[in-house]
Amino acid sequence: MAEEKKMVEAITSIQEDFAQWYTDIVTKAELIDYSSVKGCLVIKPAGYAIWELIQKQLDEKFKETGVENVYMPMFIPESLLEKEKDHVEGFAPEVAWVTQGGLEPLQEKLCVRPTSETLFCDLYANIVHSYRDLPKVYNQWCSVVRWEKTTRPFLRSREFLWQEGHTAHATAEDAEARTKQMLNLYAEFCEEVLAIPVIKGRKTDKEKFAGAEATYTIEALMHDGKALQSGTSHNFGNGFAKAFNIQYTDKDNKLQYVYQTSWGMSTRLIGGVIMVHGDDSGLKLPPRVAPVQTVIIPIMQNKPGVIDAAKQICEQLKNKGIRVKLDESDKRPGFKFSEQEMRGFPTRIEIGPKDIEAGTCIICRRDTGEKITVSISEIAVKIPEILDAIQKNMLETARKHRDVHTYSATDYDEFKDIIDNKPGFVKAMWCGDVECENKIKEDTTATSRCMPFEQEKLSDKCVCCGKTAKAMVYWGKAY
Amino acid sequence: MAEEKKMVEAITSIQEDFAQWYTDIVTKAELIDYSSVKGCLVIKPAGYAIWELIQKQLDEKFKETGVENVYMPMFIPESLLEKEKDHVEGFAPEVAWVTQGGLEPLQEKLCVRPTSETLFCDLYANIVHSYRDLPKVYNQWCSVVRWEKTTRPFLRSREFLWQEGHTAHATAEDAEARTKQMLNLYAEFCEEVLAIPVIKGRKTDKEKFAGAEATYTIEALMHDGKALQSGTSHNFGNGFAKAFNIQYTDKDNKLQYVYQTSWGMSTRLIGGVIMVHGDDSGLKLPPRVAPVQTVIIPIMQNKPGVIDAAKQICEQLKNKGIRVKLDESDKRPGFKFSEQEMRGFPTRIEIGPKDIEAGTCIICRRDTGEKITVSISEIAVKIPEILDAIQKNMLETARKHRDVHTYSATDYDEFKDIIDNKPGFVKAMWCGDVECENKIKEDTTATSRCMPFEQEKLSDKCVCCGKTAKAMVYWGKAY
Repeated sequence: MAEEKKMVEAITSIQEDFAQWYTDIVTKAELIDYSSVKGCLVIKPAGYAIWELIQKQLDEKFKETGVENVYMPMFIPESLLEKEKDHVEGFAPEVAWVTQGGLEPLQEKLCVRPTSETLFCDLYANIVHSYRDLPKVYNQWCSVVRWEKTTRPFLRSREFLWQEGHTAHATAEDAEARTKQMLNLYAEFCEEVLAIPVIKGRKTDKEKFAGAEATYTIEALMHDGKALQSGTSHNFGNGFAKAFNIQYTDKDNKLQYVYQTSWGMSTRLIGGVIMVHGDDSGLKLPPRVAPVQTVIIPIMQNKPGVIDAAKQICEQLKNKGIRVKLDESDKRPGFKFSEQEMRGFPTRIEIGPKDIEAGTCIICRRDTGEKITVSISEIAVKIPEILDAIQKNMLETARKHRDVHTYSATDYDEFKDIIDNKPGFVKAMWCGDVECENKIKEDTTATSRCMPFEQEKLSDKCVCCGKTAKAMVYWGKAY
Repeated sequence: MAEEKKMVEAITSIQEDFAQWYTDIVTKAELIDYSSVKGCLVIKPAGYAIWELIQKQLDEKFKETGVENVYMPMFIPESLLEKEKDHVEGFAPEVAWVTQGGLEPLQEKLCVRPTSETLFCDLYANIVHSYRDLPKVYNQWCSVVRWEKTTRPFLRSREFLWQEGHTAHATAEDAEARTKQMLNLYAEFCEEVLAIPVIKGRKTDKEKFAGAEATYTIEALMHDGKALQSGTSHNFGNGFAKAFNIQYTDKDNKLQYVYQTSWGMSTRLIGGVIMVHGDDSGLKLPPRVAPVQTVIIPIMQNKPGVIDAAKQICEQLKNKGIRVKLDESDKRPGFKFSEQEMRGFPTRIEIGPKDIEAGTCIICRRDTGEKITVSISEIAVKIPEILDAIQKNMLETARKHRDVHTYSATDYDEFKDIIDNKPGFVKAMWCGDVECENKIKEDTTATSRCMPFEQEKLSDKCVCCGKTAKAMVYWGKAY
C-alpha cells in the first residue's frame, strides 16, 4: 500500500489549508507545471484537455448565436491603447511592453494585448460603413497578458487563455440585448457543462470594466466560501465608437455611431471547477469536461481473459462516444483507484476473473463513491446513464453548498460577523454610494460581487450607512 | 451587371501580375485585413474558418498518433533562449523583446516566442526522470512572432498562427522515426485535405533549422512556379538535451540524454491553398477546407415556392453534414454567382420556378465550371459525390501542374536558363558543398528546396562545379 498512501497523503486536507490543497491538486493531478517565466504557467496535457472540452462546447454555443471567429494581432501600439481614456487608465499599469523588434528599438512601443477592445475598434472603424454591415459579432480564442504582482495557477497569472467577443450594433437596444444574451449563455454553460451554479447580476460602477457603461457578471461560490467572478459581459454604449470614430450610414442616410459590447471567459474556469467540486481525494471533474469519463481497471490482469474482457468493454464504450481509457499498466489496482480519484475521472470500471465468471463488473462513481454491479452486456447503456446522473448530482451538490453558504444581513454588525465567521455570500441592501463599498472593503476585505437580476427587498436601508437603499447586493471575499 | 463587373474586374489577372492577384484575393475574398500594427494581420471570419478546418483535421491526425496538446508561456527569458548556441544565433536577430512589465523595467528581458524549443526543453528537464516517462509527444497551437522586414499575408508576417510539436525519446532511432512519421503525416494532410501535392525530402545543412541535426520538409509548387515550404520536421539528436541537461535513468539504471524532435505547420498553408488553386475568378477552396461547401442561390426568389424549395434543400444537406449556406439576400443572382466564385465555395445550387416545376436544380462546380442538372430528390446524394470528385480533381490538376513545371538539368547553362525562363522546380545533381548552393543562389536567386527521399541519378556530376555528385536536389525560387 506504500504507493497509494504516498499519492493520497501528498494532498493537504481541504479543511486544513484550502490554498495548499488547491496547489496540491493542480500539481499532483498534473494540470500545470511552473515555468522559468515568473507568473506564467505550463498547462500540461491533463489541464489542457479540460480547456479543449470547454472551448469546443462554448464555441458551439457561440456559433449557434451567430458568432464568427477571427484572429487579431497580439500587439497594440501605445497610441491605439490610449484612445479611450477610462480604458487606458484601467489597463496601462498592468501591461507588458515590447520596445525592441529584431536588433532595433521600436519607434513606438507595443503592448502585449491585455484585452483587444482597441484593436477591434480599429478594425470596425475600417470595415463598418453602412447599416447593412451590422451587426458584427466577432470572437477570438487567444492568450492575453496582465502583469500581475501575485499569481495563482488558473486564477490569476501573467498570461492566460481566454475568448473575447467584441460586437458592434446599430442601436443601443441591440447592444444591450447581445450583452445580456452572452451573459445568459455563460450562465447556462457554467451550470450545464461545468456543473457550477452562478448568480447573474450587474457590477457596481466601482467594479465595472474600464471603459464600459455596464458590466454584467456571473458569480460562483467556491468550496471555501469565496466568490469567483466566472464570466463578464460589457455594454460600452457608443463611448468607444466616439473615441475611434466608428460610424455607419443608417437607412435614412444619416451618420450614426455604433454601439458595442465585449464578453469573455477564461482558463480561470478550470480553477472554478477544481474549487467547486474537488475533495480530499483530489480533483472531481463533471463528466462533460472530463477528458477521461471512465477508466477501466482490470483486477488480476494476468489471469486469462481479464484483459480481453476489459478491451471488449473499452471498445463498446468508445463506440458509444464515451471518453474511455483502459489502464493496463503494471501498477497495482489500489494505486490505479487512487489515481482515478486524484485525477477526477467521473467513473471507474473494475473487472476481474470473478466478475467475468458472473458476467458482471463494478462501476464506481467518483462523486458519491457508490459501487454499482452491472451486467457486462449492459455496460454501454449504464455508463452514459451514470455519467448523466453524476453531472446532475454535481450541479445539485454545488447548488446546495452555495445556498447553505448564502446569508442575509440587515445590520452592519451582523454583516461583519458573517463575513468574518461564515464564509460565503452575504446579501445586503446598498445605498449606491461608492463610499459604503469602500468602507465595507476596508472593514472586512469583502467586495460587492453584483447586484443580482433577481432582487429582494431585505430592508429599506443601506446595511452600511443606513441611508435609503437602492439595490440588494451580493457581497463576499473573492479570488 | 454593374456590381458583378465591379467585383470581378477588381481582381488583377493571374497571368498579368501574380503578386497583385494574390493581394486582391486575400482582401476581396475577405480573408484578411491589414492592422495598425505594421507586419501583423487581422484574420477575418472567412480566413479564420479555413484555419479552424485545418486545425480540426490536423489535430485529429495528431491525436491518432498519440500527440497530447499543452500550452506553454509566450515569453522566453533571454538566458533560456541563449542555452543552445546555434538556435539563439538563428533566432535572436528576428525576435521581439519585452523590456517592461507594468510600470517597472524587467530585470531580465523576455522575448516573445519565435518557436518554443527552449521552453519545452526546460519543461522536459523538469518532468523526465525515468525511461518510464518517455516518450513525451507534446504539441501546442499558438501564435509566434518573428520580426520580419518584408511581410506578405499568410506567407510571412510578424505574427502567425501555427502548431509546434516537441518530443523527447529514449533513443536516436525513436526520434528519427517520429521525425519521419510527422513529415509523412504532413504530406498526407496536404494531399488529402488541401489537395496540394508535395515533395518530401531533407534540407541541406545550409537550409536546416537552427540547432537541428536534420530537417525534413515538404515542398509544394505554386501556380506561378515558385516553391512554398509547407511543413518541416526536425531531428535534434541529443544536442538540446545536452545544453538543457535532459537526462533519464534507463532500464539498466544508467543516466542517458534524451533525443528530441520538433515539427510545425502554420497559417502559411492558407497562402498555399490560394496560390495552388486560385484563378482569375478568385479563390478556389478544396471541399475539405471550405467553410461553405455549397451555397444555394434562389432564382426569382420572390416567386411563390422558391424560397421554400431552397430551404428544404438546405435542410437536407445540413442533415447530411454538408456545410451549406442559403443566400436569401436581395442581391441579384449574377452577383451571387460572382461572389461564390470569388470566395471559392466548391459548388453552388441554382434553383428557380422552372427548376421546381421540373423537379430539378442545377449544381455548378467551381473547379470546372460544369453545370449539372439533378433531380431535387437526389440532391443530398449528389452533392457529397460531387464534392468528393472536386477534391480529387483539384489534387490531380495541381499534380499535373507541378509535374509539367518540374524540369531536369545536367548542365549549368541549361540550369540557369530554366530558372530564368521556366518557373518551376529544377532537379539537378549536387556535390554537397555549400559553395555551390551559394553560387547558385547568387547567380539565379534559386535555393535548394530539398534532397528528395526519392532520389534519381541524372548524372554523376554536380550541376554547378562538375565535381562528383552526392545527391539530387530540387531547386527553385521560393516564398
